[in-house]
Amino acid sequence: MSNQTYEYEELCEHLRELLAERNVAEIRQELCKMNSFDTAEFLTDLREENENLMVLAFLLLSKEQGAEAFAELDTPEQELIINSISDSQLGSIIEEMYVDDAVDLMEELPANVVKRVMRAATPETRKLINQYLKYPENSAGSIMTAEFIDLKKYMSVRESIARIRRIGEDKETIYVCYVTSGDRKLEGVVTVKDLLLHDDDDEISGIMDTNVIFAHTTDDQEDVADLISDYDLLAVPVVDKEDRLVGIITVDDVIDVIEEENTEDMDKMAGILPSDTPYARSPVVELWKNRIPWLLFLMLSATLTQMVMTHYETALAAQAVLTAYIPMLMGTGGNSGSQASTAVIRSLSLGETETKDVLKVLWREIRVAVLCGVTLACVNFVKLLLVDRMLLNNAAVTIPVALTICVTLVFVVIFAKVVGCTLPMAAEKIGLDPAVMAAPLITTLTDTVSLLIYFRFAQMILRI
Amino acid sequence: MSNQTYEYEELCEHLRELLAERNVAEIRQELCKMNSFDTAEFLTDLREENENLMVLAFLLLSKEQGAEAFAELDTPEQELIINSISDSQLGSIIEEMYVDDAVDLMEELPANVVKRVMRAATPETRKLINQYLKYPENSAGSIMTAEFIDLKKYMSVRESIARIRRIGEDKETIYVCYVTSGDRKLEGVVTVKDLLLHDDDDEISGIMDTNVIFAHTTDDQEDVADLISDYDLLAVPVVDKEDRLVGIITVDDVIDVIEEENTEDMDKMAGILPSDTPYARSPVVELWKNRIPWLLFLMLSATLTQMVMTHYETALAAQAVLTAYIPMLMGTGGNSGSQASTAVIRSLSLGETETKDVLKVLWREIRVAVLCGVTLACVNFVKLLLVDRMLLNNAAVTIPVALTICVTLVFVVIFAKVVGCTLPMAAEKIGLDPAVMAAPLITTLTDTVSLLIYFRFAQMILRI
Repeated sequence: MSNQTYEYEELCEHLRELLAERNVAEIRQELCKMNSFDTAEFLTDLREENENLMVLAFLLLSKEQGAEAFAELDTPEQELIINSISDSQLGSIIEEMYVDDAVDLMEELPANVVKRVMRAATPETRKLINQYLKYPENSAGSIMTAEFIDLKKYMSVRESIARIRRIGEDKETIYVCYVTSGDRKLEGVVTVKDLLLHDDDDEISGIMDTNVIFAHTTDDQEDVADLISDYDLLAVPVVDKEDRLVGIITVDDVIDVIEEENTEDMDKMAGILPSDTPYARSPVVELWKNRIPWLLFLMLSATLTQMVMTHYETALAAQAVLTAYIPMLMGTGGNSGSQASTAVIRSLSLGETETKDVLKVLWREIRVAVLCGVTLACVNFVKLLLVDRMLLNNAAVTIPVALTICVTLVFVVIFAKVVGCTLPMAAEKIGLDPAVMAAPLITTLTDTVSLLIYFRFAQMILRI
Repeated sequence: MSNQTYEYEELCEHLRELLAERNVAEIRQELCKMNSFDTAEFLTDLREENENLMVLAFLLLSKEQGAEAFAELDTPEQELIINSISDSQLGSIIEEMYVDDAVDLMEELPANVVKRVMRAATPETRKLINQYLKYPENSAGSIMTAEFIDLKKYMSVRESIARIRRIGEDKETIYVCYVTSGDRKLEGVVTVKDLLLHDDDDEISGIMDTNVIFAHTTDDQEDVADLISDYDLLAVPVVDKEDRLVGIITVDDVIDVIEEENTEDMDKMAGILPSDTPYARSPVVELWKNRIPWLLFLMLSATLTQMVMTHYETALAAQAVLTAYIPMLMGTGGNSGSQASTAVIRSLSLGETETKDVLKVLWREIRVAVLCGVTLACVNFVKLLLVDRMLLNNAAVTIPVALTICVTLVFVVIFAKVVGCTLPMAAEKIGLDPAVMAAPLITTLTDTVSLLIYFRFAQMILRI
C-alpha cells in the first residue's frame, strides 16, 4: 500500500533535514507534494519532538493546504496551532474549513479558545457555526455540513452544470445535487451522473428522482450511517422540522460515525463507559473514571455469590472437592453467556435481528446451548475420571461427584445462553442500548445462578 | 427517517394484497416505485411466508430492477431464485450485475449451482469472474470491480466528458477516472469535479493528480478500508504485480468491509470463531461449531485453577471464609483485564496505537490499574467490615481477613491490566490478530494467578 510519486517515510526524513537547516523555500516546495492526511500525520510526529518545529512547518504550508491539514489534526495539535498564529491567519483557516469540521473543532476546544476562534471568523461563518452547535450531540444536525449544491427543477442540464462549475469548488460533494422549491423544501435529487447521461436541454424536473431518502436534523447519526450503508449513497440530505433542506451528510463522515459507534459498542461490552477521546490520547485519570464505575458495581454485586457460598459453607466442607470446580463452572457460564450476548448485540446493531424475533432467537440459543452443554459435559466427564481421578490421583473425584459437575455444566450453559440472548433484546425493547447488557453484567448474573444450580444438584446427587 | 414518495410498510401491504389477487399489471407498476434495497427486503419477507410468492414477485420486476434487487439479496434467496428461473433469464441477470457482486455470489453458492450460473454467463463475463475468483479471500482483488472509467493523458476535458457520457452508464463510479498508459499502467487520477472545474480544451495531463493512492490485488481488504477512510476517497484503484490497473474498490463496498471486520473482531473477543454467515441466518449446528472450540479449550484450561484450589484445600478448610470471596476476586480480575484488552485491541485496529508503543501503553495501564485497584480495595474494605461483618453478622470477616482480600484485589487488578494490554500487542507483533487474545483467554490466565496471589497473601497475613 503506497503512494506513487513519494514515499512518505523518505519525504518526512528529507523535510526534517530541511527544517533543521531552516531551508524555507525548499520546505515549501516539498510540503506541496503531500496530501492533507499525510501532512497532518507529519505535523503530529514533529510535535512529539518539538512543538515549535510543528508550528513552523504549519506556517510554511500554503493557505489552502494549511486549512486542509488543520482539519485533519487532533484537538491538542489544533489548539497548539491556534495559540501560535495571528487572528487574521486563524480567520482565514476557519473560513477555508468545511462548517462540519469547524463545528467539531468548537465542540472540542476549551471555552476561551473557542471565543478567540469565533471572534476571528466572519459574522456569516459565526452564525452558521452557532446554528450547528445547537443540535444535540450525535444527531444528524451536529454532523451535517451546509456546503451542498442546490438546483431548481425548471433548470436545464446545461444551466445545472454551469451552476456546479460556478459554485462547486467549496462544496463537500458536487456529485449529488438537491432540487429545492422556493421555500427551500426538498423536492428531488439528481446526480452528476444523471446530468452527464442526459441531453444539455433536458429539464431537471424530468430527470430528478423524487423518491429521496433523507434524514431529519434530530435523527441519530447511527441511523444516518445505516441509510448510507444500506442504500449505497454518497450523501444524505438533512431537513429541519419544516422539511426545509438545511444540510447534507457525506459518506466519508459516515465512515467515521460507524467506527465511532463500533468503538462505543465494544467499550460498553467490556464494561467501559464510552468516551470521545481515543484510548491513545486519554489521560490516566480519564481512563480510571471510565472504567471504575462498572468495576465497582460488579465487585459489589459479587456479594450475591459470596452470600450463596457462605450459606453452603458447611455443606461444602463435607465435600471439599466441589470447591475446586467452582471457577471452571463460573468461567464456562460466563463465556457461554458472552458468546450469546455478543452475537445478539451485533446482530441487533447491524439490523439483522429485531426485538420481535425474540422467541426465534431464544429457541435457537436454547438448541445451541443444549448442544454446547452436552458436548462440554461429556468431554468433562471423561476428563474428570481419566485426568483428575487417575492421573492426578484425586480419590475424591468419584462418579457421583463427576456427575454432579457435568449435569450442572449443562444447565449452567443453558441458563447463560438464555440470559445472554434475552437481556440485550429486553434492553433494546425498552429503549436502552443493548450493548450495556453485555459480558460483565451477564457474568455476574450467571455466576450466582451457577452456584445455586451446582449446590442444588450436589444436594440431590451427593446428599450433602 | 423515511422516503418521500412512499411509505415502505404501506406499499408492502398493498403489494401483498395485489399478489393475493394475482393483479400482475398493477404489481409491476407498484414495484417500480421501490428502490433495490427495499425490494430485496420485501422479497426476503415474502419468502418467509411463501417461497413461490417471492419467486413470482421477482419475475414481475423489470430486467434492470431484478438484477439490482438480486444483488442485494442474501445467498439463500438468490439460490432459490436461480433454481426457479430459465437459463436465459439467469444469463441476463448475471450480465447486468457488477462483476464484484457476481463474484460474491459465486463464492457463496454450492458448486452445482455455480456451474449452471457460469454456463448461463457470456464467455467474457465468465472469464472475468474466473479471474476474480483466483484472488485470496479478503484480498483487495477479491472485492474489486472491473467497471471503472479509464482515460488517456492526451485527452482533452471535452473528450473525457464525452467518453464518460458514452461508457459511464454501467460503471460503479464515474466520479473518479483513472489515467492509464498504453500498457495499462496507472499514471494518474482525475475526478469529475476536476473536469467540470476546468476548461473544455484543457488536457488531462495538466489536470490529473499523479500522486495516486492505490492498492495491490493481494493487499488485505482491511488496509484498503483504512486507505479510503483515512484519505476520504470515493474509490481506490487496484493494480496487479506489474503495476497495471485491474480494478477499483468503491466506498460503498468498503463500508461493508468495515462492518464485517468489526463483527469479526467482536466475535473473536467473545471467543467465537468468525463466520461469513450472519447470526440471524446461521444454522444451529454452525453456531455450535463456531462456539464450542473456545468453550472446550477454556473449560479444560480451568484445570489450572482447580489444581491450585486442590493444592490449598487444607489451608482453605482452616479459613473457610476465604472461599466465599474467590468469585469476586476472579470476576474483578477478569473484568479489569477485558477492559484493558478491549481498549488496546480497538486502538490497534483503528491504527491509533502501534506495537512499538508497548512500553507507553504498559506504563499507562499500570497507573490506571493502581488507581482502580486502590479504589476497589478501599471501597471493599469498608464494605467487608460494615456489610459483611456487621450487617450480615459474619464474625469470620476479621480485619486481617479483610486486609488479605483487599491487598489481593490491588495486585489482581494490576496483573489483569498488564496481561490485558500486553497479550494483544504481543499477538500483533508476531503477526497474529490481537482480537484472539481477548477476554476469555485473559480471564483464564488471571483466574489462576488471582488464586495464587490470594493464597500467598493469606499465608503471609493469616499464616494459614
